[in-house]
Amino acid sequence: MINITFPDGNVRQYDAGVTGMDIAKSLSNSLAKKVLSVSVNDEVWDSMRPINEDAAIKLFTWNDEEGKNTFWHSSAHLLAEALQNLYPGVKFTIGPAIEQGFYYDIDLPEGKSISAGDFPKIEKKMLELAKRKVTFDRQDISKADALAHYQNVGNEYKQELIDGLEDGDITFYTQGDFVDLCKGPHLPHSALVKSVKLTNVAGAYWRGDETRPQLTRIYGISFPKAALLEEYNNFVKEAKERDHRKLGQQLELFAFSDRVGAGLPLWLPKGTKLRNILQDFLMEEQRKQGYQMVMTPHLGKKELYETSGHYAKYGKDSFQPINTPKEGEEYLLKPMNCPHHCEIYKCFPLSYRDLPLRLAEFGTVYRYEQSGELNGLLRVRGFTQDDAHLFCMPDQLKDEFKAVIDLVILVFTKLGFTDFKAQISLRDPDNPGKYIGSDENWEKAERAIMEASEEKGLPTFIEYGEAAFYGPKLDFMVKDALGRSWQLGTIQVDYSLPERFKLEYIGADNQKHRPVMIHRAPFGSFERFVAVLIENCKGNFPLWLAPEQVKVLPISDKFMDYANSVKTQLETAGYRVSVDGRAEKIGRKIRDASMQKIPFQLIVGEKEAESQQVSIRRHGEGDRGSVPMSGLLEQLEAEMDGVVTA
Amino acid sequence: MINITFPDGNVRQYDAGVTGMDIAKSLSNSLAKKVLSVSVNDEVWDSMRPINEDAAIKLFTWNDEEGKNTFWHSSAHLLAEALQNLYPGVKFTIGPAIEQGFYYDIDLPEGKSISAGDFPKIEKKMLELAKRKVTFDRQDISKADALAHYQNVGNEYKQELIDGLEDGDITFYTQGDFVDLCKGPHLPHSALVKSVKLTNVAGAYWRGDETRPQLTRIYGISFPKAALLEEYNNFVKEAKERDHRKLGQQLELFAFSDRVGAGLPLWLPKGTKLRNILQDFLMEEQRKQGYQMVMTPHLGKKELYETSGHYAKYGKDSFQPINTPKEGEEYLLKPMNCPHHCEIYKCFPLSYRDLPLRLAEFGTVYRYEQSGELNGLLRVRGFTQDDAHLFCMPDQLKDEFKAVIDLVILVFTKLGFTDFKAQISLRDPDNPGKYIGSDENWEKAERAIMEASEEKGLPTFIEYGEAAFYGPKLDFMVKDALGRSWQLGTIQVDYSLPERFKLEYIGADNQKHRPVMIHRAPFGSFERFVAVLIENCKGNFPLWLAPEQVKVLPISDKFMDYANSVKTQLETAGYRVSVDGRAEKIGRKIRDASMQKIPFQLIVGEKEAESQQVSIRRHGEGDRGSVPMSGLLEQLEAEMDGVVTA
Repeated sequence: MINITFPDGNVRQYDAGVTGMDIAKSLSNSLAKKVLSVSVNDEVWDSMRPINEDAAIKLFTWNDEEGKNTFWHSSAHLLAEALQNLYPGVKFTIGPAIEQGFYYDIDLPEGKSISAGDFPKIEKKMLELAKRKVTFDRQDISKADALAHYQNVGNEYKQELIDGLEDGDITFYTQGDFVDLCKGPHLPHSALVKSVKLTNVAGAYWRGDETRPQLTRIYGISFPKAALLEEYNNFVKEAKERDHRKLGQQLELFAFSDRVGAGLPLWLPKGTKLRNILQDFLMEEQRKQGYQMVMTPHLGKKELYETSGHYAKYGKDSFQPINTPKEGEEYLLKPMNCPHHCEIYKCFPLSYRDLPLRLAEFGTVYRYEQSGELNGLLRVRGFTQDDAHLFCMPDQLKDEFKAVIDLVILVFTKLGFTDFKAQISLRDPDNPGKYIGSDENWEKAERAIMEASEEKGLPTFIEYGEAAFYGPKLDFMVKDALGRSWQLGTIQVDYSLPERFKLEYIGADNQKHRPVMIHRAPFGSFERFVAVLIENCKGNFPLWLAPEQVKVLPISDKFMDYANSVKTQLETAGYRVSVDGRAEKIGRKIRDASMQKIPFQLIVGEKEAESQQVSIRRHGEGDRGSVPMSGLLEQLEAEMDGVVTA
Repeated sequence: MINITFPDGNVRQYDAGVTGMDIAKSLSNSLAKKVLSVSVNDEVWDSMRPINEDAAIKLFTWNDEEGKNTFWHSSAHLLAEALQNLYPGVKFTIGPAIEQGFYYDIDLPEGKSISAGDFPKIEKKMLELAKRKVTFDRQDISKADALAHYQNVGNEYKQELIDGLEDGDITFYTQGDFVDLCKGPHLPHSALVKSVKLTNVAGAYWRGDETRPQLTRIYGISFPKAALLEEYNNFVKEAKERDHRKLGQQLELFAFSDRVGAGLPLWLPKGTKLRNILQDFLMEEQRKQGYQMVMTPHLGKKELYETSGHYAKYGKDSFQPINTPKEGEEYLLKPMNCPHHCEIYKCFPLSYRDLPLRLAEFGTVYRYEQSGELNGLLRVRGFTQDDAHLFCMPDQLKDEFKAVIDLVILVFTKLGFTDFKAQISLRDPDNPGKYIGSDENWEKAERAIMEASEEKGLPTFIEYGEAAFYGPKLDFMVKDALGRSWQLGTIQVDYSLPERFKLEYIGADNQKHRPVMIHRAPFGSFERFVAVLIENCKGNFPLWLAPEQVKVLPISDKFMDYANSVKTQLETAGYRVSVDGRAEKIGRKIRDASMQKIPFQLIVGEKEAESQQVSIRRHGEGDRGSVPMSGLLEQLEAEMDGVVTA
């Protein structure tokens, strides 16, 4: 008999050789039907694999990431089997599960190719294979036999993969006639896969190396119920409509130019307005919390980053040094603002009375990313952090942390993100040597973060070993309107930079002390935040944030004077407003204003001009009828404090 | 007889061989005594040099730049003669007049050196030589004879200079025993030099090349009256007190760090506040004029600057390209914002109805300068332009120009610069081939600038040949409180970039047309403008601009509560205010607040707390007595519209 420990701590005894599936059945038959895989001492296994020793287990279903992962990995094998049927001679390389589905990279026989037009027949074949209800059988195999198999089959890719594996660690999986080098795990049987959709076909280099053969990558997704595919299709459609790259263009917020360079956004007038409003909002809140703004250059001597340690860690993979034409100097594009802020700290003789010193900057930084990794504003090569560095005494950490949490929550709430939680990243208790700073300070900082989060009622979860080497941190994740998670703001404690820059203050004891530093950015970066904001609110910004709040649409040229007088009145009241003075029909004007998602569209014609009223169309809602200016101003004012209207 | 034309257009006849001095005497003896040199057909000559043909002349005195230049150049020769007396064997290289005085670069005999301690004896010797009242005699000399002379003397520097000259163009000047290779001109006689002050001694490389011998450069200044030296000494003292580098540190506005890099300013909290207020002020004025803000990255692909033409022209002497670690891309730090704005222009399909398009950016650019040329905020390697590019139809040029002139005048007036004029830079009529764009467009643009300036009543002067190759321009010069001239704002017409970037708009005729572009920056750059502003107002910023407007100085801890309540009331009213809560005596608090040039210093003690008043000290003025809060707010409000109080 062996002892099986369940996640809730309960322990039950089973015969050695029991499988995850057996255990599930012993608990409930309906549960067993849903089990996709099982973790045994934190390693994910096939649910059909025998457990021979005492173990802690966890059963995974479709509701778990691990369960989905197993489902999609088995689906990749079904895809491979289908391709082997339809394209004899195809060579397989790797076929993993990914965040949403799976792919398989294949080398097609000479002269063959696959396009989206081929997807239906492949999907049909996959479902046909799934329906056989075959098992995925795991088989230990020696390195020699594994190599012999793929020499026989004529697959140099798998041979290369096997070359890199340890003898004794190699397994094959077989479903029906299809055998694959694979470490698993897999589903209990193939018939769990009820619906399949191939989503894309693309080129991919073998091992990501552009000097090696180009393969065909086929992406797909699969589900245990047909209804889930429909749900997924709706999600994809909705995500497409919310895509910040599409909306960014439609709303004229930002653009990219090949001549300026990939990943370097140009903020167009409306996007700049949006960003400036966000900046002003944050600047004012930061002012209330005692922050002081600074401005620093976008480059620094290589020596600066040698001092900070960034050069040793990232130099090789960054934008390369800038040389001067004379004098032999070397500069680097600024990848972060902290070294500059440390230099500012050193400009002042500081005492304990001057701390905390809170230096904030909307600091634009540049980090190299491979062009294939770039993605609209979400992943760029140049971005502006809403950065600040708080230099304080160790005893001030908790209060500073609490104030920053307040600020982050204020920002999220004001911008319509109500569903968020924070990850507390602490030291790895098994690996204390990799961290800088005294145990006492670490304990103080970790306790400060946990207490601050608790006192603020912040929903959190702890991850051990996720702290930076220089200090613990708190990362904020928000859920958007489609349920997707995004990592946005961050708060980090840092003992390293004050040490490296030899920062000091004179304590009440008249001795020199080293301050602690907090890095924090509620938005993270304006680029990333605006991208997530656009996708969350679908471009329907709250009124206070809309780059253009009101558009006056005169029915014809005759009412231009009245339209302009409405505009002037609104401008005087502080609103951002324009008049559509084009010689277009009113229907076209409304359509265009709606495309631009202008919150208030005011139609003015004869009736309105005579009665000195405006006919209000609230975008996303419809007609609100005619009101005098005072009524319009009331409606506007009532919305100015509002958050995102999704 | 020859015809001599005077600046007023009058023509008089003189015998051939007449000198400038003869002509001066023919007009007035008192004028003749003041004449230092004369221009003959726009070339500055000795006043004693015979004029043999018809010529246009202009007589120069101490009141003219040219006159001062001659005075100081002759003084450099007197310095050389004095050094020849005192340091036998010294070798002379070059000794020009400069903006304020003159210098001579010399190679001292082995083992000799000169320090400031030696100045008195050199000055004494110079005055002694001046008093001889010797003339500076011009002598044409053949290249061979000139070389022979300096071979004989053993001066390799002068030989090298002569090597670079054309035979027939070489002259020597002799005063007393001192002979120098020199193209002149010089004073009528040495006794005009009545007072002399040597100001500095420094190292300088021969021909500015650090691989060549290091010479000793001695700086000096001289005057035709002793009283002028005193005036100059006062000016130097005052300039030193106004030095923006000194005040920038004292007022904690900006700093430099060796680790960040030379010429890369760090804007400290108060400087950032100042700059943000300036930005907000300009942004609001620009908004009223229909500008739209944009933001662009601080780098661009090399290709972008190849397109703009900047790379071919400046690439070699700029910060060198930034390489990516992979992908082989080359980027450049942005030296100007225009190429980026052209790319933004191309993001929109524009028609004549959309023009002018006015794109503004506070754009930080980076330009390499040799470290020896850097000077506080006046000459830096990274600076932020208050840049904008106006894209318009040729017919809109004049109106746009007028609006920009309005804006520049508004900026200058608001910042306390009341004495300014503008240089209109037009084509060189003798060299039409060096300009891009049609004659018709150039004429239109030049006329637009001149008419716009005239209609706006702008004091201007025209310089032919000073236009950029891409268009005419208008440069603003301001005079500061010490009478020094600074070039600040600029407005430039550009036909080249719209051509190079193939910018287009659809005209009313439904055809494609090319817009004209105006570059403009009222401040020029924030760095340079703030430097000049500090020196002009001596750090006494107008109230609306002061980073810290009010400081509350409690007489002791007992009055902290009242001090804080005063602070809160002022903050609520929108003022920037802090409390000096240190345990210092009130005298020290006042002294420190005065060092920081805080406009309003409020002393609060028992009497004030009881009567709910504040005792006002207006910096630069003194005590204003006690008033209730309402009285303080009135005084503050009354000053908020004011300009600089120098």
